Amino acid sequence: MSRKLKMGMVGGGAGSFIGDVHRKAASIDGMIDLVCGAFSSSAEKSIASGMALNLKEDRCYGTFEEMILKEKALPEDVRMDFVAIVTPNHMHFPPAKMALEHGFHVVCDKPVTLTLEEAEELQEVIEKSGQVFALTHNYTGNAMVKQARAMVTKGELGKIRKIQAQYLQGWLSTPLENTGQKQAAWRIDPKRSGIGGALGDIGTHAENLIEYITDLKIDEIAADLGRFGEGRVLDDDGNMLIRMENGAKGSISISQIALGEENNLGIKVYGEKGSLEWYQENPNELITRWLDEPKKIYTPNGVGLHKEALEVSRIPAGHPEGYLEAFATIYKNVATHITAINNGETIDKPDYPTIYDGLRGMKFIYAAVDSDKNNTSWTKIN
Amino acid sequence: MSRKLKMGMVGGGAGSFIGDVHRKAASIDGMIDLVCGAFSSSAEKSIASGMALNLKEDRCYGTFEEMILKEKALPEDVRMDFVAIVTPNHMHFPPAKMALEHGFHVVCDKPVTLTLEEAEELQEVIEKSGQVFALTHNYTGNAMVKQARAMVTKGELGKIRKIQAQYLQGWLSTPLENTGQKQAAWRIDPKRSGIGGALGDIGTHAENLIEYITDLKIDEIAADLGRFGEGRVLDDDGNMLIRMENGAKGSISISQIALGEENNLGIKVYGEKGSLEWYQENPNELITRWLDEPKKIYTPNGVGLHKEALEVSRIPAGHPEGYLEAFATIYKNVATHITAINNGETIDKPDYPTIYDGLRGMKFIYAAVDSDKNNTSWTKIN
Amino acid sequence: MSRKLKMGMVGGGAGSFIGDVHRKAASIDGMIDLVCGAFSSSAEKSIASGMALNLKEDRCYGTFEEMILKEKALPEDVRMDFVAIVTPNHMHFPPAKMALEHGFHVVCDKPVTLTLEEAEELQEVIEKSGQVFALTHNYTGNAMVKQARAMVTKGELGKIRKIQAQYLQGWLSTPLENTGQKQAAWRIDPKRSGIGGALGDIGTHAENLIEYITDLKIDEIAADLGRFGEGRVLDDDGNMLIRMENGAKGSISISQIALGEENNLGIKVYGEKGSLEWYQENPNELITRWLDEPKKIYTPNGVGLHKEALEVSRIPAGHPEGYLEAFATIYKNVATHITAINNGETIDKPDYPTIYDGLRGMKFIYAAVDSDKNNTSWTKIN
Amino acid sequence: MSRKLKMGMVGGGAGSFIGDVHRKAASIDGMIDLVCGAFSSSAEKSIASGMALNLKEDRCYGTFEEMILKEKALPEDVRMDFVAIVTPNHMHFPPAKMALEHGFHVVCDKPVTLTLEEAEELQEVIEKSGQVFALTHNYTGNAMVKQARAMVTKGELGKIRKIQAQYLQGWLSTPLENTGQKQAAWRIDPKRSGIGGALGDIGTHAENLIEYITDLKIDEIAADLGRFGEGRVLDDDGNMLIRMENGAKGSISISQIALGEENNLGIKVYGEKGSLEWYQENPNELITRWLDEPKKIYTPNGVGLHKEALEVSRIPAGHPEGYLEAFATIYKNVATHITAINNGETIDKPDYPTIYDGLRGMKFIYAAVDSDKNNTSWTKIN
Repeated sequence: MSRKLKMGMVGGGAGSFIGDVHRKAASIDGMIDLVCGAFSSSAEKSIASGMALNLKEDRCYGTFEEMILKEKALPEDVRMDFVAIVTPNHMHFPPAKMALEHGFHVVCDKPVTLTLEEAEELQEVIEKSGQVFALTHNYTGNAMVKQARAMVTKGELGKIRKIQAQYLQGWLSTPLENTGQKQAAWRIDPKRSGIGGALGDIGTHAENLIEYITDLKIDEIAADLGRFGEGRVLDDDGNMLIRMENGAKGSISISQIALGEENNLGIKVYGEKGSLEWYQENPNELITRWLDEPKKIYTPNGVGLHKEALEVSRIPAGHPEGYLEAFATIYKNVATHITAINNGETIDKPDYPTIYDGLRGMKFIYAAVDSDKNNTSWTKIN
Repeated sequence: MSRKLKMGMVGGGAGSFIGDVHRKAASIDGMIDLVCGAFSSSAEKSIASGMALNLKEDRCYGTFEEMILKEKALPEDVRMDFVAIVTPNHMHFPPAKMALEHGFHVVCDKPVTLTLEEAEELQEVIEKSGQVFALTHNYTGNAMVKQARAMVTKGELGKIRKIQAQYLQGWLSTPLENTGQKQAAWRIDPKRSGIGGALGDIGTHAENLIEYITDLKIDEIAADLGRFGEGRVLDDDGNMLIRMENGAKGSISISQIALGEENNLGIKVYGEKGSLEWYQENPNELITRWLDEPKKIYTPNGVGLHKEALEVSRIPAGHPEGYLEAFATIYKNVATHITAINNGETIDKPDYPTIYDGLRGMKFIYAAVDSDKNNTSWTKIN
Repeated sequence: MSRKLKMGMVGGGAGSFIGDVHRKAASIDGMIDLVCGAFSSSAEKSIASGMALNLKEDRCYGTFEEMILKEKALPEDVRMDFVAIVTPNHMHFPPAKMALEHGFHVVCDKPVTLTLEEAEELQEVIEKSGQVFALTHNYTGNAMVKQARAMVTKGELGKIRKIQAQYLQGWLSTPLENTGQKQAAWRIDPKRSGIGGALGDIGTHAENLIEYITDLKIDEIAADLGRFGEGRVLDDDGNMLIRMENGAKGSISISQIALGEENNLGIKVYGEKGSLEWYQENPNELITRWLDEPKKIYTPNGVGLHKEALEVSRIPAGHPEGYLEAFATIYKNVATHITAINNGETIDKPDYPTIYDGLRGMKFIYAAVDSDKNNTSWTKIN
Repeated sequence: MSRKLKMGMVGGGAGSFIGDVHRKAASIDGMIDLVCGAFSSSAEKSIASGMALNLKEDRCYGTFEEMILKEKALPEDVRMDFVAIVTPNHMHFPPAKMALEHGFHVVCDKPVTLTLEEAEELQEVIEKSGQVFALTHNYTGNAMVKQARAMVTKGELGKIRKIQAQYLQGWLSTPLENTGQKQAAWRIDPKRSGIGGALGDIGTHAENLIEYITDLKIDEIAADLGRFGEGRVLDDDGNMLIRMENGAKGSISISQIALGEENNLGIKVYGEKGSLEWYQENPNELITRWLDEPKKIYTPNGVGLHKEALEVSRIPAGHPEGYLEAFATIYKNVATHITAINNGETIDKPDYPTIYDGLRGMKFIYAAVDSDKNNTSWTKIN
């Protein structure tokens, strides 16, 4: 039996970017309703935000603790099914832990926590709780990324030899944090971001995309981090070399001071039989190269796709899906999993990022920071 | 005061493409809930479709007449606010007329009706009713299309001299209609599509995009239509010349037998001071050319946009929005208008396509068919 | 036995664009030396131009008549082998005729002559002379154009249904002819250009490309020509519909007032089994689409090419060849043919455009002008 | 006074790739004639190669020593002006040294020599000789590269912060060297290539492009080289981090096993005020990004260029120039310089790569190899 799931949100009040993204992504497929939230640090602001979202006043809470406790007390067919956590990094762990311990599933933005220790503790909480915990590495929800992973894991590219990933933005080229811009302010602040700046904010996406598409772990990393913005203590740029567990080599370039770049996440994977290339700013195109054939361009719902990619496309070929749709796929798969659990069913292999991805991301941040401190020496990620 | 609007749907049952698009588009911005529908030609199928969408059984109707009458009888805070009509063309006029006459607003897919006469009658019904009637020429909801229109209407391109538009698809390259594919079946059938085939299905989008961006009417048209698929009586291809009311000249190429093309709607507009180019398959890029400056590429929420474009973007630059988001903008603007009406407020210039666009589209179809019958002679659109 | 061929040039003095192009194109493959020329309308200017090109003064002539007669009188191993004619259109026929009648081969720029009558007379002269006559429809020398033609003529695309060609420039967007710019001045002048403006200058390239790639003749044309520049009597813009001899339909758009366009010649050909797309501004890429395979992109000397394309590439894949190299292929193939003739050998199918292409081009111009005069009525090209 | 210069060639016999490139590049601008050569390792083969190039038999030599001595003995107006050296790396130094010491100018392919010691010795020979020595880092001859350098050196991008360069090929993805392919055979052989494989063959182009465009030296490098082809002792892949002398950071990725890549040399440079991006496979486009303006695309001979770029373009905007034309610019500038010397004139700043670039390239190779041996430790390039 199917019903729409009920979502509560932590964070995402006025001025938030990612909260709105989560709400839209959760809405697209008609499987989820937002029913409550602790949107802001004050009850007043939270209510204002919630009512602007057409919520009832009594479902707008001043703190996540209040939300979790009061929702728990509501009748089962009224209370929220899961919590979406869309706060800055330092506020991921506390609500996630409490929600899980009170029997709520959790969807959480990345990086998973402020510190690696928190991530490890969270892993235990999750395992103990038996609840769903999903991490929104949203780019893995894109149809062409699914196709890329399918091609690699089915061996179509042969053994992987070389990987290049980049995540380039330019929005912190100027000292935006000094202008009162909230998004910039918390990202350059170690207390709210953790030990990684760009590393945590975008580097983890690049790392996750590499490991997701290739199904290989990054074994070690040599990082040269930049802090170009005056007074910044966290990295706003990074050039990194990587070695994969299978012997492949490569590089990751990230930046938030790459002036003029908007959101240029991209990856190239070269194998012994074929290669592929994908950019999230042009998300409806997967470029592939082959030994004996000309370059082939795959498109969502287009010709020649694996079912893993076809399942993800919502609309016919040529009707571009974008950032929100890929994000929505994470929510859709989470909703499908929670619904199955509610119905006492089992899902073979739930298809969304989990605490495993969260831990890999934290270890990536820590290894990169360590390597950088040691003058770019090779550092294991494990 | 704001509340979510309640949508009823006519059409859009299992196997429908566009019904699902409307539902997702209506959902994205969190302003609309689907509450009821007459999804299919039988009550049984309609209920099955509706319940798969998490509707209550008693809000799934066997006919649009039943839906309109029964919803009308429901308490005001329960019944639907508006009807979305997503059926084949021949089933646009009857539910639209009845809904309007029973006090419901209407969102309708294009082309607006089966015949020009119906469109003219519908215009009267709309005016008499005072209800909102929106036509989903969805591409006008794209941020770069808004920017294009703003640039032209503010005179930045100077007097327009030349226009090229195309809408190229290849999905009817083979006799798909003989395979039981429902989408193909009704589109090649004059009883359900009207006198235009590709003309109505995609040609009207091209025509609408030209007139929307340039704010100029097509004055006359010379059309050479193709019926390449064996046994097809409606056009599946068309090559057309146009003359604009201001003296500009141009062409429109449409096709559903342009093998391998997915959904290639594009437009080029050349003025005396600047030019622009846009493709819906690459919707996040507006290419502009100038006398004294190099080619400039605009992006949604990027640098240098007019407010008309900025208002439409949901997410930061570099996060691609696609087909559904542009579609959603129509719904968002409709919802904003209906909410204003509900609150007794007035909106200066509601920003969505209306019956005016619907009539222009029908006249375009009729003129093109006439011209084609007269060996491509110039034919007025008015 | 092989030796470098000796080229004389008519036209191409200081300020000429195309003369320099011909010289560079003739040089690239090391098969041709420029040895003499009648570069300008005065002996003095001609000598100045020639000496700047490192020619001997006594091989710089004041008129083409002088050049032809004096060269004829030189010893066989000294005198020029062929004449390259790079003058405005009205000066193609006289030197071509005289050169052929004096035993010189001819390479001539397009359109072949000022009038259709001249072209027909020239055909007779050529046939009588037995000399080589090549017309520089240079784009047919591009490797991807060769590949396109090979794919179509081998039937890989199936029966052709739809064709779109364009040749868009913006350099006459402003009244450049009033500024003393020589290139503009003669092109808008019927006495020097003939009855076609953009039609002759660039339209013939589009027409030739269509017929070359598809191996099909344009059967009839319906043209709407524009004369947007104030005071212009020749077309500077054209929108045309075409019907091919095999039933395919299509359009040609040309312009010299498409502001900001540089030299945008492009073609799309749609068949029953496959489609192709090529743009001369991105000449190293042939885009193809298929029923059962994703889009494939061919590149010069890349994977999967026919020998017709491979023969033309000079350098490995990924090393872009451009406008001059395609142009040079015409010269190379002409030089190969002349050398064969010199050696008493026969070449099976010389691969360069001839008077046949020249006549097709003139008929195209005449039919388009006729159609335009008759309010865009369908007009045969034959 | 101007005359065509006479070129002798060392290397470039049958089966050579780069010899033919040099000949075509030297021919395009009509300033240089090939008059003699020591094309192959045997007199017989050399004569066969030379005669196929329309040379006289007595100007085809069995060794470069013979060529230099015999040409030296010819009358001044007959003998060659300069030598073009197009052999594998180990055969650069001997003919270069001897030619310079016998009064001939030299154009030499890169990397400049087999070893750093040779390069340093060559520098002394050049300085002592007073002859022209040009190194064919051909990509610096591209108009968009000139524009890029002009923009950076004029400060338009502000202080440079980040650089990404890549040179990706796939032609050694398979063991091509075992198939008798000569190009592959010498490139994987340390005796003929030196201590760098891909490093010398393509890495030096990337290094040179970075330093040419930014006018900044790479200060240190951290390299992780790959030897993916079985049995290869030289690198066929490399991932490198760089630190520039001004504090900018970046990366260089090179590969000859990046399957499917053709000749993908590219660079991105990010400054505090603007950024730029260029790819040699799409050489007629310079992408720039700015704080307050949308992305701008420059094209050769297009709008808004600096004179440094305009001087290099041969044909109007939109007529693509390619690999050979950029290469030809080196030859043209060398010819201009030699002609000036011949005329007793001085040229202010000859614009072609010199032994300085050669030495930088060798130091780059050595530093990268050293770093790789020391587990990617930072290594100075000086």
